Amino acid sequence: MEQGFYKDSIVLLEGVIEEIVARLNVIRQYKKVHNDRDPIEYIFSRVKSEDSMKEKLKRKGFEVTLENALTKIYDAAGIRIICSYIDDVYSVVEMLKKYSDLKLIKEKDYIKNPKENGYRSYHLVFEVPLDIAGEIHPVFIEIQIRTIAMDFWSNLEHQMKYKHDIKNPELIVSELKQCADEIATTDIKMQAIRKMINNS
Amino acid sequence: MEQGFYKDSIVLLEGVIEEIVARLNVIRQYKKVHNDRDPIEYIFSRVKSEDSMKEKLKRKGFEVTLENALTKIYDAAGIRIICSYIDDVYSVVEMLKKYSDLKLIKEKDYIKNPKENGYRSYHLVFEVPLDIAGEIHPVFIEIQIRTIAMDFWSNLEHQMKYKHDIKNPELIVSELKQCADEIATTDIKMQAIRKMINNS
Amino acid sequence: MEQGFYKDSIVLLEGVIEEIVARLNVIRQYKKVHNDRDPIEYIFSRVKSEDSMKEKLKRKGFEVTLENALTKIYDAAGIRIICSYIDDVYSVVEMLKKYSDLKLIKEKDYIKNPKENGYRSYHLVFEVPLDIAGEIHPVFIEIQIRTIAMDFWSNLEHQMKYKHDIKNPELIVSELKQCADEIATTDIKMQAIRKMINNS
Amino acid sequence: MEQGFYKDSIVLLEGVIEEIVARLNVIRQYKKVHNDRDPIEYIFSRVKSEDSMKEKLKRKGFEVTLENALTKIYDAAGIRIICSYIDDVYSVVEMLKKYSDLKLIKEKDYIKNPKENGYRSYHLVFEVPLDIAGEIHPVFIEIQIRTIAMDFWSNLEHQMKYKHDIKNPELIVSELKQCADEIATTDIKMQAIRKMINNS
Repeated sequence: MEQGFYKDSIVLLEGVIEEIVARLNVIRQYKKVHNDRDPIEYIFSRVKSEDSMKEKLKRKGFEVTLENALTKIYDAAGIRIICSYIDDVYSVVEMLKKYSDLKLIKEKDYIKNPKENGYRSYHLVFEVPLDIAGEIHPVFIEIQIRTIAMDFWSNLEHQMKYKHDIKNPELIVSELKQCADEIATTDIKMQAIRKMINNS
Repeated sequence: MEQGFYKDSIVLLEGVIEEIVARLNVIRQYKKVHNDRDPIEYIFSRVKSEDSMKEKLKRKGFEVTLENALTKIYDAAGIRIICSYIDDVYSVVEMLKKYSDLKLIKEKDYIKNPKENGYRSYHLVFEVPLDIAGEIHPVFIEIQIRTIAMDFWSNLEHQMKYKHDIKNPELIVSELKQCADEIATTDIKMQAIRKMINNS
Repeated sequence: MEQGFYKDSIVLLEGVIEEIVARLNVIRQYKKVHNDRDPIEYIFSRVKSEDSMKEKLKRKGFEVTLENALTKIYDAAGIRIICSYIDDVYSVVEMLKKYSDLKLIKEKDYIKNPKENGYRSYHLVFEVPLDIAGEIHPVFIEIQIRTIAMDFWSNLEHQMKYKHDIKNPELIVSELKQCADEIATTDIKMQAIRKMINNS
Repeated sequence: MEQGFYKDSIVLLEGVIEEIVARLNVIRQYKKVHNDRDPIEYIFSRVKSEDSMKEKLKRKGFEVTLENALTKIYDAAGIRIICSYIDDVYSVVEMLKKYSDLKLIKEKDYIKNPKENGYRSYHLVFEVPLDIAGEIHPVFIEIQIRTIAMDFWSNLEHQMKYKHDIKNPELIVSELKQCADEIATTDIKMQAIRKMINNS
């Protein structure tokens, strides 16, 4: 039953990424041509690895099947959008919500309401009707939108989470939390300076 | 009135190419995963140059405006799909016609009915509803599908057409015509050998 | 002993490909800017798979070690260059031989002297001094140069070779041989027409 | 005399970028395979625009010629390397200095000695012997290496410099200077946390 489930799902997951990235590229060009600010700096994407997908399905009590991989896991296909400024993050969120064929499944603003450890980011999950020569496959995609500074912080925090034999976890966690707050303050200052430059 | 018409249209024309190429990439992967033959060897694309677009509009008696560039010219955005075998060409044609949101505007089978000079190729024109953050822009795209051999021939024929001071045009035209027929025969033979290999 | 040999060798093999492809890109641009014909249509590359490398080492009686993978196999890193015309093939060969740091190890002109089955192509093997931050690693690379038509034929012939249960192998081999000769004739004709167009 | 100087120089400038980026890609892979940290996050490159090149030559009192473009301007070809941590910046610098064929022309450590406005970055200029099918062309390249945070700051500072009608320049300059110092402090803290995580 497990056999081949990944090979089959990966093509749909990569397909949905390809489709959304194509739309993002088009809109970025469109904004540039119309002298609008392109709010995006970088786009990254990944399909969850076979092992993580199996592990997540089992942890949630589901059978490891293609159907469950596509219907029970929201972040099997993931796109991360990095912006320079906080305003850009919200402008990307608004942009994505305007596509009438993307069904919004979940929305979390971890910028206004950061996680306890200091994590900041905006998360959206959409259901995308992927069209493969006339067959429509509904596929979920998770889109995380954050500033460069939030991303930098989050990469370091991620390293800590995946190291299991750390000596002073409490110290590191509290240092990380403090850095997250300082980075958030810098983000707000840089945004303010940018406004001063553009409005003057 | 002419000012800026190209800058505005190019983003829609490149957008429609990006969208269709994304779909082709998805379907190619889908076929590979399902042990179906991927019928495509190469995909090329181009947006018509500003000068050719202006020239074409004027020649057809239209004003040079953005609206006319997008509604009167079918091949402002073009994709060329190169296949190894003739059967693959027809399989790509069938594949493309299955997308329910692509409106077929024009269809020409220059393989069954080659042009007088020997030109062989399958031409499709679709109207694509390009979605830019909720705004739908209908844009035409011309898709030419041909074998490697037809493409090779056509590139040489193209060189001749754009050289204006040729000494023996009749001789070259007749040599090219003869080569086109030989290439068509080779295409059919190679297709037959392929069937022999696969069916045996 | 076998453990890890592939992971270590692959980075050098991909490195040598990256280096040679960068040089080819530079020279192609250089020719375009100087109104010289760019003789190259497509560039493909591949690193031999782990299984083929092991199989080849064993078949030749060598131990499966990193050193042997890099010093006994000439085609572990391979580049294929596809040209439109026969003259272009020879011009690429001349171009490559001009790099004074590439040491020519082997050279075979299967265009002037086709293989018995009809195979045509020009093969070069170079030893490249790959510089990784000051450490020089000598790595072999095999470069195959051929026309579009030779490549098309060779892809079909390759399919036959890897199908083991073919019913009429003699018939197919003889049909393929005949097609190879016809394709070679067409290549010569197309080259002649090109000369007629350019010289007139 | 000015005619065509850009078309000719651009191919050498793009060539030297292509060559150095290929080497960086190889070394990044090499480090990954050997379980060494890949110190690079992003690589950007650009060739100076025709107008800036002309302007710079004139400002420095040189004639606008191909030779001067290639021998008097150090940053006509530029690569920017972005690292996560300060240690990574220095490790990239060491790496680049190990290539024996790259001649170091200029070196500035604006991290240890920031510019007055707060700018931090490490600058290297190399003379690269670009090999085009046996012809050696010496070409300069400027490589800027900085952290993500330094890069973010510098992009905002750059926007200010190119806006000429700013109302409160002194206020913005002083705010930017203060932000630069805070960002530098965060960089050092994040580096320290990373060491704590890795060494524990």
